[in-house]
Amino acid sequence: MFPYLKEAGKATFQDRYVKKANELLVPWDGKQAGNIGVIGVPLSKSSISHSGAAFAPQAIRQALSFYSTYSIEAGIDLADITVTDYGDVVMHPTDIVESQRRIAETVEQVVALYPESKWIALGGDHSITFPVVSGWQKQKGKIGMIQFDAHHDLRNLEDGGPTNGTPFRRLIEAGVIDGSQLVQIGLRDFANSRAYTEYGKQRGVTMYTVEEVYRLGIQTIIEKSMQMLSDVDAVYVSVDMDVLDQAFAPGCPAIGPGGMDSRTLLQAILLLARYDKVQAMDIVEIDPTIDFRQMTSRLAAWFILQFLKEKKEGDF
Amino acid sequence: MFPYLKEAGKATFQDRYVKKANELLVPWDGKQAGNIGVIGVPLSKSSISHSGAAFAPQAIRQALSFYSTYSIEAGIDLADITVTDYGDVVMHPTDIVESQRRIAETVEQVVALYPESKWIALGGDHSITFPVVSGWQKQKGKIGMIQFDAHHDLRNLEDGGPTNGTPFRRLIEAGVIDGSQLVQIGLRDFANSRAYTEYGKQRGVTMYTVEEVYRLGIQTIIEKSMQMLSDVDAVYVSVDMDVLDQAFAPGCPAIGPGGMDSRTLLQAILLLARYDKVQAMDIVEIDPTIDFRQMTSRLAAWFILQFLKEKKEGDF
Amino acid sequence: MFPYLKEAGKATFQDRYVKKANELLVPWDGKQAGNIGVIGVPLSKSSISHSGAAFAPQAIRQALSFYSTYSIEAGIDLADITVTDYGDVVMHPTDIVESQRRIAETVEQVVALYPESKWIALGGDHSITFPVVSGWQKQKGKIGMIQFDAHHDLRNLEDGGPTNGTPFRRLIEAGVIDGSQLVQIGLRDFANSRAYTEYGKQRGVTMYTVEEVYRLGIQTIIEKSMQMLSDVDAVYVSVDMDVLDQAFAPGCPAIGPGGMDSRTLLQAILLLARYDKVQAMDIVEIDPTIDFRQMTSRLAAWFILQFLKEKKEGDF
Amino acid sequence: MFPYLKEAGKATFQDRYVKKANELLVPWDGKQAGNIGVIGVPLSKSSISHSGAAFAPQAIRQALSFYSTYSIEAGIDLADITVTDYGDVVMHPTDIVESQRRIAETVEQVVALYPESKWIALGGDHSITFPVVSGWQKQKGKIGMIQFDAHHDLRNLEDGGPTNGTPFRRLIEAGVIDGSQLVQIGLRDFANSRAYTEYGKQRGVTMYTVEEVYRLGIQTIIEKSMQMLSDVDAVYVSVDMDVLDQAFAPGCPAIGPGGMDSRTLLQAILLLARYDKVQAMDIVEIDPTIDFRQMTSRLAAWFILQFLKEKKEGDF
Amino acid sequence: MFPYLKEAGKATFQDRYVKKANELLVPWDGKQAGNIGVIGVPLSKSSISHSGAAFAPQAIRQALSFYSTYSIEAGIDLADITVTDYGDVVMHPTDIVESQRRIAETVEQVVALYPESKWIALGGDHSITFPVVSGWQKQKGKIGMIQFDAHHDLRNLEDGGPTNGTPFRRLIEAGVIDGSQLVQIGLRDFANSRAYTEYGKQRGVTMYTVEEVYRLGIQTIIEKSMQMLSDVDAVYVSVDMDVLDQAFAPGCPAIGPGGMDSRTLLQAILLLARYDKVQAMDIVEIDPTIDFRQMTSRLAAWFILQFLKEKKEGDF
Amino acid sequence: MFPYLKEAGKATFQDRYVKKANELLVPWDGKQAGNIGVIGVPLSKSSISHSGAAFAPQAIRQALSFYSTYSIEAGIDLADITVTDYGDVVMHPTDIVESQRRIAETVEQVVALYPESKWIALGGDHSITFPVVSGWQKQKGKIGMIQFDAHHDLRNLEDGGPTNGTPFRRLIEAGVIDGSQLVQIGLRDFANSRAYTEYGKQRGVTMYTVEEVYRLGIQTIIEKSMQMLSDVDAVYVSVDMDVLDQAFAPGCPAIGPGGMDSRTLLQAILLLARYDKVQAMDIVEIDPTIDFRQMTSRLAAWFILQFLKEKKEGDF
Ligand SMILES: [Ca+2]
Ligand SMILES: [Ca+2]
Ligand SMILES: [Ca+2]
Ligand SMILES: [Ca+2]
Ligand SMILES: [Ca+2]
Ligand SMILES: [Ca+2]
Ligand SMILES: [Ca+2]
Ligand SMILES: [Ca+2]
Ligand SMILES: [Ca+2]
Ligand SMILES: [Ca+2]
Ligand SMILES: [Ca+2]
Ligand SMILES: [Ca+2]
Repeated sequence: MFPYLKEAGKATFQDRYVKKANELLVPWDGKQAGNIGVIGVPLSKSSISHSGAAFAPQAIRQALSFYSTYSIEAGIDLADITVTDYGDVVMHPTDIVESQRRIAETVEQVVALYPESKWIALGGDHSITFPVVSGWQKQKGKIGMIQFDAHHDLRNLEDGGPTNGTPFRRLIEAGVIDGSQLVQIGLRDFANSRAYTEYGKQRGVTMYTVEEVYRLGIQTIIEKSMQMLSDVDAVYVSVDMDVLDQAFAPGCPAIGPGGMDSRTLLQAILLLARYDKVQAMDIVEIDPTIDFRQMTSRLAAWFILQFLKEKKEGDF
Repeated sequence: MFPYLKEAGKATFQDRYVKKANELLVPWDGKQAGNIGVIGVPLSKSSISHSGAAFAPQAIRQALSFYSTYSIEAGIDLADITVTDYGDVVMHPTDIVESQRRIAETVEQVVALYPESKWIALGGDHSITFPVVSGWQKQKGKIGMIQFDAHHDLRNLEDGGPTNGTPFRRLIEAGVIDGSQLVQIGLRDFANSRAYTEYGKQRGVTMYTVEEVYRLGIQTIIEKSMQMLSDVDAVYVSVDMDVLDQAFAPGCPAIGPGGMDSRTLLQAILLLARYDKVQAMDIVEIDPTIDFRQMTSRLAAWFILQFLKEKKEGDF
Repeated sequence: MFPYLKEAGKATFQDRYVKKANELLVPWDGKQAGNIGVIGVPLSKSSISHSGAAFAPQAIRQALSFYSTYSIEAGIDLADITVTDYGDVVMHPTDIVESQRRIAETVEQVVALYPESKWIALGGDHSITFPVVSGWQKQKGKIGMIQFDAHHDLRNLEDGGPTNGTPFRRLIEAGVIDGSQLVQIGLRDFANSRAYTEYGKQRGVTMYTVEEVYRLGIQTIIEKSMQMLSDVDAVYVSVDMDVLDQAFAPGCPAIGPGGMDSRTLLQAILLLARYDKVQAMDIVEIDPTIDFRQMTSRLAAWFILQFLKEKKEGDF
Repeated sequence: MFPYLKEAGKATFQDRYVKKANELLVPWDGKQAGNIGVIGVPLSKSSISHSGAAFAPQAIRQALSFYSTYSIEAGIDLADITVTDYGDVVMHPTDIVESQRRIAETVEQVVALYPESKWIALGGDHSITFPVVSGWQKQKGKIGMIQFDAHHDLRNLEDGGPTNGTPFRRLIEAGVIDGSQLVQIGLRDFANSRAYTEYGKQRGVTMYTVEEVYRLGIQTIIEKSMQMLSDVDAVYVSVDMDVLDQAFAPGCPAIGPGGMDSRTLLQAILLLARYDKVQAMDIVEIDPTIDFRQMTSRLAAWFILQFLKEKKEGDF
Repeated sequence: MFPYLKEAGKATFQDRYVKKANELLVPWDGKQAGNIGVIGVPLSKSSISHSGAAFAPQAIRQALSFYSTYSIEAGIDLADITVTDYGDVVMHPTDIVESQRRIAETVEQVVALYPESKWIALGGDHSITFPVVSGWQKQKGKIGMIQFDAHHDLRNLEDGGPTNGTPFRRLIEAGVIDGSQLVQIGLRDFANSRAYTEYGKQRGVTMYTVEEVYRLGIQTIIEKSMQMLSDVDAVYVSVDMDVLDQAFAPGCPAIGPGGMDSRTLLQAILLLARYDKVQAMDIVEIDPTIDFRQMTSRLAAWFILQFLKEKKEGDF
Repeated sequence: MFPYLKEAGKATFQDRYVKKANELLVPWDGKQAGNIGVIGVPLSKSSISHSGAAFAPQAIRQALSFYSTYSIEAGIDLADITVTDYGDVVMHPTDIVESQRRIAETVEQVVALYPESKWIALGGDHSITFPVVSGWQKQKGKIGMIQFDAHHDLRNLEDGGPTNGTPFRRLIEAGVIDGSQLVQIGLRDFANSRAYTEYGKQRGVTMYTVEEVYRLGIQTIIEKSMQMLSDVDAVYVSVDMDVLDQAFAPGCPAIGPGGMDSRTLLQAILLLARYDKVQAMDIVEIDPTIDFRQMTSRLAAWFILQFLKEKKEGDF
């Protein structure tokens, strides 16, 4: 009505030839959905150490607004993709197990409604991967998992319950996956204990350390990993940002040296997204309250865009 | 549809018995409006010194979410008030004068549409007061102005154009107000120059320094000020947050010691809002990018709530 | 053995005539205890909003090291007092209710062992007051409570379980105290809802708002409060640091303007500690991860020292 | 006069065998000039997003003080070079177009006075490149430009006027350069739109993406770029620091992942400075107010020193 | 020569009717001097705890640039005063005692040259007061000292040498002053030890605690203090910023609650400057590296301006 | 005694299968010692520029708590190693030379007591290397030194005494080592002066610049360096963290671009630790007060763990 009034917070500069990546996200209207769905999972009270990862879904969405929809490298414009934003799962303030139950139930419901959709879950801490995958797997049959992580996340459940150190243990022990369906990439010195490495090996988990990533090259590792998972129906990629060196992902609770660089991980996501079987991804362990200039959320936004780029290239 | 899904960013804790103050803000639908309107004016390129005051309208709206609608002191609940949020005026990236023209035009239009409404403008820097008041005054006849400020803001326009140091000079010289219709409260040592104090006095501006505020008491000053403005049709209150001591408003560009404390200013707003003639207010010179934990925006949120409380008490 | 070697982290400057206040704290050896006990309760996952209050017990202990044991105002030196530090209660990473159960059980046990001791509990968020008082009250008979807080903390338990918004509701509904045994001081505008104010009034809670604190004076309020509690056997003082204005306690999760100043609250603690019946205190809602230079923990350290000063003056 | 008194702010440690790089800068006395001139262009109100790049000229000058004049790699000492510091162009507080006019006029004047000098302009945001190059080109005939940037900066001027997104569009459309005289290096995904990539291609702009930089190697790209510009009279290098990955240049407004590393860009500057035709450089888009420990300005200081090192090696 | 070029770092906005306070400072040319001299004493390696107070002289000078020369409260403009800036004393990097010797020697020399001048020394930590006063006293005869401080600074010298905890002990023991010539104002709980309070009393030091400041009023205390010093030839005021409450001086190494507010201290300086005998002042214990937005240096700038205002009023 | 009480500050999550690296440190009991000793040397007043490196020993010890004892790359668990923590050397507050004397004396004493032990000294600034090596060498005979550093640290002693710019000059001039026994790796442009490079060459110091590190590869350089030192009895490795690029070690006082990356330095430590002759290491120039999230201390913790890993592999 009035030419210079815009909705609160929206009066930012608009260039008519530029679409910002956050504009790809369209809130779900309860009726229709695009080829890809995003769901926020703001849980971090489950973390062993203090974490504000619950703020990451919003930080990542906002970080998308810093980027455009156009890939000059690939000559692809994502401007015509619709990414359905299902919003966030509501957490219980004082019952962490109930929060995880809500996540599983909600993911199961939305995936059941749109089984053909690809999914991106925005954590939260890594504990969310158990309920998210539990819910998602119900529609998918036999699944494979590729986990980028400095850590195994195979801790026992007696000592602390379903923390962010346990999701892959829980997936195995609940029978959602067999150990042989899990590939861990980027495992790091002084980030694990021998007991859990041995547990994983006994369960048949495939493991690549950071040194192996640099020695073999990320392309080889991705190829071998997908080969390992050749008999599954669908693959879920779980990206714990702390797989990266602290110089590249300063906003993870468990930062440290000796990790992967961001170029390599960006390349890995691209390579994985080319496989039709790769149908879901989560991004976890970003704490925006301790990040520097939301660098780690900006990286997460790029992971989403890399994923979309390849999925569009492959026509979903 | 799904019990635990909420729109992105809205999945925060809800207590059924608590209404948060930001929920009072209802985006204008182009049709109906409440008794009070809020409009964001995100301009700060006009500032003499570097300022991110353009981020303040959103920071203040968000700060309202930290508070409830209930005043235990007055026994008043604002829960049933509707504050219409007209959104923000869109600024021009490289033409500051055009931005100020848009502000004046837009304010004139909305005030013309809802002449009975009370108004709260959220700056931005103090330069916005000239276009906002210019637009508002067109519907109001003879107006009075009460300015809380460490500074006169009566600078010449030759040296820097329409900066945040000039709004009251411009209002006087454009004939929107006469100097005698302006009361300045909280003027401070080492924040002004003799030339501008003298200019103001020649124009008949009423001036109260910080020491006078403490010597006379804020109640006396408010009463004398409103008496001084007894023949105007409507009064506009302009709150430059730097009237406060740096300990209470750490997020203003021009912080310093020797200013008012926040209790006194909160009291002043309350006393002013009791007058029917006080029909508009702006809050300016908050730079959220340099604030500590948004303290200064939190204070601005309280000024809005104090204003609403008294306006509701007086049945608008 | 070697003259210039000291235990890791202890090689700081020592003036032979100065005792630092943290040296008053002596870890409990399982055998003997001093007149006053300190216990850390590092729980903050129970908070409605993100909180690192679990780090406060250590931050407060460390803040004591910034101060000496000597009160020049009172001419009293605390150097010969022994404060027994019972350490911290171990929290469960993912079971908040279990953590609260451990707090209650542990406090009950230590108080049973040393029923004559005075106690200072270091939160943590305000949810800890329910288990701490539940455990402490078992040895004390009829108790009174004086709560310094911007908020009632009388929220319903259905919406979020035992959060930091509920401890006094729980104490009343569990029958640990009757509403008439509770005095709330420092209640603030826009920090509560009418429903909970009414609930408190129905239960007979005594309430003083910030404006009443300034109108009546803190001394009068303390006297009236203790009179109100004249028939109880022991009084517990619960200090939620957010009762203070944000300028004085920048490190509380729920900061805001319009609160008490720190001088007034320091005076209140002093006046209360003079009563023999005042036998326990907690200090809650400090989040060291968002504080400025640990100012809020430094203040907490002073509350402890003020308490000790008067208790020593009264010979415990 | 007194042995231990030094001018305010200069009383820092002096090692008789070390010359600090900032001491190379000699304020212009209006009479004589060295082989290389530095000019500060503190304009950032022209930025699309909030920017304090106006503080960069001083931050970069100060960063030079952290380094010495000696290159151990090349065995070259810059100690005997004189870099004339022409100071800063004075900006208009509220008229951005006027500020840009002043820049063009001033640069034209100083270059006319010292046409043989090499020049380094310190932005400011990227909008300064249009007026700086416009002024400089007047003495230079046909020029070539090598732009390091994640972005094209070829935006239309209708939507926002002469912002930092437009300088190369303006240079082309004003006829200062033809598109074929422009080489862009380091263009990045999600930082541009297809429309502007196409505009550039139509105009004959040469483009190298980040992936091409890594695939071809920076040396090859520099050689091909200079070959492309073999028929120009002089080459101007424009360094937008956001061409770097966020891990290496944390202080740019538009940071993001996927960019060049600093070693590669340092190498590129070195290679370019070896060409006699390369006679001017600007460094833009550093916002010292959001940087971490002035890292990005420290890098800019190194770019200047690399440039000087090669120019000295080539005897200017 | 060129209309829009200004010396590096000086191209800031200039309003022809405003003089900034930092422009009052004129570097000493070795020949002439104004009525008041400023000297920087950047020593803080002498501090017991880690301190960057060596950066304060520059921070305070810069803070003056935030303020003007005009006092609206007093109707006085300082624009025509010349404050001679003698620069900074050069410190030795590894010999703290030598640094203190240089301070004493330098101050003695400049005071001998301009014995009629008033002096303001900018620390540095409080250890500088011993050499500064030692040098200054040589020209002054019997002197009195008024020390604003939370601490006595009367520590023994055996335990740590001439730290910032010892200057007044040293002055007394070196016979520069007698204890009876020293008045300490603002002494605080938990900031001292009984031993040093007793030492001071034995030496005849006059002491006022914070509570006494509030009980008696600052005016009474200043009057009594100056009466106590009625037989001295000149009075030196030493302002340790940590006499203030942490809310008002967040940038002191030894911050804490329970201190004076800034209004009271500003008033105290004003009252003292009215006495002709008050002829020198130092401001110490500001660490700009840990301050918030240079608040504490801004306050120091005001102390200087308050001092100048009254000295001008009294015609020096 | 009580199941949920733990010593103050120790009540953190414990996984029964994980040992944290800080638990390897066992305070020296004056009787027994492990194969490796750690000693803290908290001296940084000797630094040319302001430095809080005195806080690094504690920051590094704490950073060890972020990591486990298990190397998945090597399949080695350090859990059964005992690292004896000798604590910190007590510094003199105002006598830097005395502090350095204490360091030398203390190191000499402990090394004499346990001559077979390997040693890790935690600085502090680089000045500590002179006293530490002086003390250590007394038991070792002819020693070699490998210094990772952007700087020579061969400054003259006349200008500033024994600063952090002088330790290797002092070692040479005191005859502790001959220049030919010193290898400097990672020397950088604009970080040194020609005079000191020449001094080093005259003394026979072996020098590798950053470019040489990248050109030759770190493995070659380590091999050549150890060959160069083939006739010494023991090798000491001195790691100045500023040898790293600012992106990887943001917490050094003298950060800058153009440095080594952390992977290369981690590799270098590993390669060196494999040599039996490498028997001591120091880590210096980390200032935790200016670091980002203790990244630089985390890296130091990894250096210790890399060192331990290889030493265990080689059975000490
Ligand atoms: Ca994980
Ligand atoms: Ca992980
Ligand atoms: Ca103003
Ligand atoms: Ca103002
Ligand atoms: Ca509470
Ligand atoms: Ca509260
Ligand atoms: Ca650009
Ligand atoms: Ca750019
Ligand atoms: Ca002192
Ligand atoms: Ca003090
Ligand atoms: Ca070094
Ligand atoms: Ca170095």
